[in-house]
Amino acid sequence: MRRIGLLTSGGDCQALNAAMRGVVKSLLYSGEQIEIYGFLNGYQGLIYGNYRMLDGGDFSGILTRGGTILGSSRTPFKTIQDPDPNGLNKVEAMKHSYYKLNLDCLVILGGNGTHKTANLLREEGLNIVTLPKTIDNDLWGTDMTFGFQSAVDIATEAIDCIHTTADSHGRVFIVEVMGHKVGFLTLNAGMASGADIILIPEIPYDIDKIVKAINARKERGSKFTIIAVAEGAISKEDAKLSKKDYKKKLEKRAHPVSYEVAEAIKAKTGQEVRVTIPGHMQRGGSPCPYDRVFASRLGAEAGKLILKGEYGFMVGYKNREIVKVPLKDVAGKLKSLSPDAAIIKEAKLLGISFGD
Amino acid sequence: MRRIGLLTSGGDCQALNAAMRGVVKSLLYSGEQIEIYGFLNGYQGLIYGNYRMLDGGDFSGILTRGGTILGSSRTPFKTIQDPDPNGLNKVEAMKHSYYKLNLDCLVILGGNGTHKTANLLREEGLNIVTLPKTIDNDLWGTDMTFGFQSAVDIATEAIDCIHTTADSHGRVFIVEVMGHKVGFLTLNAGMASGADIILIPEIPYDIDKIVKAINARKERGSKFTIIAVAEGAISKEDAKLSKKDYKKKLEKRAHPVSYEVAEAIKAKTGQEVRVTIPGHMQRGGSPCPYDRVFASRLGAEAGKLILKGEYGFMVGYKNREIVKVPLKDVAGKLKSLSPDAAIIKEAKLLGISFGD
Amino acid sequence: MRRIGLLTSGGDCQALNAAMRGVVKSLLYSGEQIEIYGFLNGYQGLIYGNYRMLDGGDFSGILTRGGTILGSSRTPFKTIQDPDPNGLNKVEAMKHSYYKLNLDCLVILGGNGTHKTANLLREEGLNIVTLPKTIDNDLWGTDMTFGFQSAVDIATEAIDCIHTTADSHGRVFIVEVMGHKVGFLTLNAGMASGADIILIPEIPYDIDKIVKAINARKERGSKFTIIAVAEGAISKEDAKLSKKDYKKKLEKRAHPVSYEVAEAIKAKTGQEVRVTIPGHMQRGGSPCPYDRVFASRLGAEAGKLILKGEYGFMVGYKNREIVKVPLKDVAGKLKSLSPDAAIIKEAKLLGISFGD
Amino acid sequence: MRRIGLLTSGGDCQALNAAMRGVVKSLLYSGEQIEIYGFLNGYQGLIYGNYRMLDGGDFSGILTRGGTILGSSRTPFKTIQDPDPNGLNKVEAMKHSYYKLNLDCLVILGGNGTHKTANLLREEGLNIVTLPKTIDNDLWGTDMTFGFQSAVDIATEAIDCIHTTADSHGRVFIVEVMGHKVGFLTLNAGMASGADIILIPEIPYDIDKIVKAINARKERGSKFTIIAVAEGAISKEDAKLSKKDYKKKLEKRAHPVSYEVAEAIKAKTGQEVRVTIPGHMQRGGSPCPYDRVFASRLGAEAGKLILKGEYGFMVGYKNREIVKVPLKDVAGKLKSLSPDAAIIKEAKLLGISFGD
Repeated sequence: MRRIGLLTSGGDCQALNAAMRGVVKSLLYSGEQIEIYGFLNGYQGLIYGNYRMLDGGDFSGILTRGGTILGSSRTPFKTIQDPDPNGLNKVEAMKHSYYKLNLDCLVILGGNGTHKTANLLREEGLNIVTLPKTIDNDLWGTDMTFGFQSAVDIATEAIDCIHTTADSHGRVFIVEVMGHKVGFLTLNAGMASGADIILIPEIPYDIDKIVKAINARKERGSKFTIIAVAEGAISKEDAKLSKKDYKKKLEKRAHPVSYEVAEAIKAKTGQEVRVTIPGHMQRGGSPCPYDRVFASRLGAEAGKLILKGEYGFMVGYKNREIVKVPLKDVAGKLKSLSPDAAIIKEAKLLGISFGD
Repeated sequence: MRRIGLLTSGGDCQALNAAMRGVVKSLLYSGEQIEIYGFLNGYQGLIYGNYRMLDGGDFSGILTRGGTILGSSRTPFKTIQDPDPNGLNKVEAMKHSYYKLNLDCLVILGGNGTHKTANLLREEGLNIVTLPKTIDNDLWGTDMTFGFQSAVDIATEAIDCIHTTADSHGRVFIVEVMGHKVGFLTLNAGMASGADIILIPEIPYDIDKIVKAINARKERGSKFTIIAVAEGAISKEDAKLSKKDYKKKLEKRAHPVSYEVAEAIKAKTGQEVRVTIPGHMQRGGSPCPYDRVFASRLGAEAGKLILKGEYGFMVGYKNREIVKVPLKDVAGKLKSLSPDAAIIKEAKLLGISFGD
Repeated sequence: MRRIGLLTSGGDCQALNAAMRGVVKSLLYSGEQIEIYGFLNGYQGLIYGNYRMLDGGDFSGILTRGGTILGSSRTPFKTIQDPDPNGLNKVEAMKHSYYKLNLDCLVILGGNGTHKTANLLREEGLNIVTLPKTIDNDLWGTDMTFGFQSAVDIATEAIDCIHTTADSHGRVFIVEVMGHKVGFLTLNAGMASGADIILIPEIPYDIDKIVKAINARKERGSKFTIIAVAEGAISKEDAKLSKKDYKKKLEKRAHPVSYEVAEAIKAKTGQEVRVTIPGHMQRGGSPCPYDRVFASRLGAEAGKLILKGEYGFMVGYKNREIVKVPLKDVAGKLKSLSPDAAIIKEAKLLGISFGD
Repeated sequence: MRRIGLLTSGGDCQALNAAMRGVVKSLLYSGEQIEIYGFLNGYQGLIYGNYRMLDGGDFSGILTRGGTILGSSRTPFKTIQDPDPNGLNKVEAMKHSYYKLNLDCLVILGGNGTHKTANLLREEGLNIVTLPKTIDNDLWGTDMTFGFQSAVDIATEAIDCIHTTADSHGRVFIVEVMGHKVGFLTLNAGMASGADIILIPEIPYDIDKIVKAINARKERGSKFTIIAVAEGAISKEDAKLSKKDYKKKLEKRAHPVSYEVAEAIKAKTGQEVRVTIPGHMQRGGSPCPYDRVFASRLGAEAGKLILKGEYGFMVGYKNREIVKVPLKDVAGKLKSLSPDAAIIKEAKLLGISFGD
């Protein structure tokens, strides 16, 4: 008999359910007796001991369903060591829940923030296995995260829709894609939908270069321009600010960055610029087939690790193989997109401007 | 030999191409010799004599394509009688283009504004046939307009995506749907996606009723609430303002109405509220099958009218039949959604709150 | 307190769950106390007394889900009066279940066959309300049935996919669409996807006319042809057979009709013809937004009838209004598509051949 | 000035247009003067000198369009050395077209058969660059081919649709997925859609093991079973036949393999089994975002090779990088799926039966 805890933490994304189903199916089909405790709403459930007992039936039919059957939350406190409003030491509270239920292992699905906490729990002696979830694909130690391809699909569909209306009206259109720190999602959605200009955090933009690209299109007879802008796109001037000063500036900025870009283009070209922000749509809906297969495979391998008693790992993907990556190597690191990456060069070969 | 002009005016939508293909195919298959003049970018093309000669091949393969192959524009002047910036009398200019090309008929695809101008041209003696295009479904004289169902599909998909993330995080989510004056689109998308609260221009909302509905859901154990808000949703207080005062208020409001609703809910409940605005996506992308069939049928019947020399009509849809409606009856009227309509009552039976 | 039975019978389709959710939500929100008995797998559940007690929670989240949470079956006996294999009189057995549970009303969702039985139960004195479900849209007494538009969407998507490959290879492609007796589905999917030839049961085809249409396309420079064929398409020769002889012929025919059409075209033109049959896909998947709204509205009105104690009706749709239609008028009648219907004429105006 | 030929050969698939657009855009944006000759309908166009001159405009807006703007054909002769019906030596004819147009390079998009011929032309001294197209993902020398993920998406959607109807009716459903020789497509679509049993050419099936898996599901309370069957699935008995004898057997088999599997299951369980074959749908429709990005990147790198004058390569994908692979290494080899591949083991961990 094994007693397994499950929790999903951070912003939700597609295929969380598919991944959990993979873990549970692989454990059940192994013939092992298992008890499954699903903690509700991320680490909060672990801290306050809120959980539901689950069985195989709870995971039936959820392969294709978005969201997470366990609920999620972004941790509502600055650091995990902080006491919660009631003075509770959170780490101790989480350990307490773990030991009280006599768990053999806790499976945690999440992104960067989640992995920091997961590693801390590992250091405290808990048996942890994690799965890499994020639409940003910015987790260190894995070539891919689940949620990413589904988000690319939705953002692409959004830009596809905008394409026909931009073409009909001869307008400049900005679509803002999720991604505060990394540009993988914006880059892929932009390339997939034939965006003409792509602005990502990794490559600070020069508004004059953007205007130049728009005008070059006009000269070639294209009356419209599509710009895919990451939430975290940054101008060359802002990139020169200290981190602190930029943060201050962001706090004062009432609007998303796209409106700033739109204003600047309008000021320089006199042309009408429209902004569309699909926002949280990018995290929702049924996972795409790629993510369903990928998350299921990760889940299956997580189940195998648990059966072998190998803890302290994130199950990741490297060179087309599912691998285990030590949690201590993952925690606190960000995978970023190099401005010199092959895909960026290829995008430039295709005539896409990054405003640099 | 017949010489036909075609133009698409106003905000673009799905199935404009399908409708034009219908007109042209029905004329070509009749065996009649025809010449087709496509005016570019709406009435502007007619005013300035910008057109392209088209043949059957131009309409092949466009049934499924969004946007309009002719381009469109919202008329950039206050009234059609105003001279353009160069002092040109626009009505005279349009008549000039029509007579210079010796047209037998001008087919105009557009919404409310477009129909006003179309009727004016009719009064000036031009042979006009129109087709009802708008995602708002607010054209008088027809039960349905093309573009509407496609927009419902996209707005529904947007809310579907939001549903899974709202559920996972236990949040209140607002999705703003297009529609400044009428609520058909928001109502249908809201009902199709299981929205809990729907705010439309026809039914001014009371913020306390909205809060009550959210709390009632919580008491029944639902931790999240989805609100579909039309662009033109209006509070009970604002509905009491004079038209002029309200317009002033709108001009001062920097943000879409959804942010106002979100702030008010947050202030009264302390709950986090997220806003998503799919915006122009709702006009774009491939028309849905319903619109493709519908626009094709309208186009075919327009072709029939032209062959019979029956001018001065909009081709509309009444009681499941394609009919001709005198242009003079259509121009300047708005089809609105009665707060007592059966569909509103049915929505209320299903437990949907309109904040009234 | 009201005790309500629910059952779904016949081939499943999209929006069955949406419709049941509509009934239950409208009853629950009325404030009435209700008990819901869901009979499993259609009339079988009623005959053998297999049911599940349901509450509001069972209907939460099912608006968008295909299939039926109650299961369905095509009645596995020739007539309802026949005893079942165990000698049980089926009508008596159904009445027994109804009275034993002391039901106030039985809500039945189904198509033509289902309605015959439903009316028989009404004649036996049971309180019955029905909802019109079928992808064929062939129920008498209603302009529309739910499932139809969703099936049109799927069949259209199938033909859309085939379109690109037909175009690339310059082939004749047949897509067989569901519909043994009526052609609404094939006609709409064919028109929506730009099929060149549409064969439906209502218009017997002449293979030479089909070949002529293919050749005419070739002469106009179109190297490919798309044919949408209803399952029940019939040749002019076969249409002359007696009903009995035709039935015999059908029983001997090993393949779907499309292969027969393909062979005949190949024999007469030497051209390669490919057949694709999406089959049961057309009944499955998430209902389209149109069907979700429509089924919800029908369900809400069914709830209203029940609350008023008005029994013996199908809730249908006439001239854009939800109406009640006496069950005795519906049972045993088929709504068919007239070869002279306006939509057929419009399709012909668009150059579509029906092989007649 | 460079003179480039383009041709697409073999069964069409998604993203052929995206890949060609990539090649042409990267050449045009390099500033190089180029002339583009598009040969029509695959190698036939090269043999008979049928081509169209193309410019940048021909590649605008085709990123999202399925099929190929050049047309394709499966070579209608047994070997490339065979004279064509008019006694023309085909290799000489192709060389003649190449030299007559004074081409610098010929870009060929295709699968296994296409690559054999491409390599033969390379051996004859022509400058060749190829791109790996196939929904089967069975090309040696590349981890991925474009078309594959799009086909997975369509096959998955098909099985998703079947899922709801299978569940409602408690039936066994077979969906036949494309793939005569390799099972990548069936395996991925099956895993993505939650198929219970997956039959692929690489793992011969034992009908008794299939029946056992169906019965095990029944015992666990699942009343339906979904089986994804590759076109080339083979029973253990047939796998023992000599290649010649099996080929003979296939020639005699009137029906696709799925019907054979269905009959066998029915015979052993008495249960109703339905078969759905989405067929050519899997090759058609708009490419998925993954394929659009991937094909664009491959095209861009092909353009780079051409500019550098590096010929005799297929542009492939290895360990997440776009690479060049010598054509001579690719020709005549098949990439197959090992029965011991990690993904197969993971599928088995998830409880999926392969009938072995």
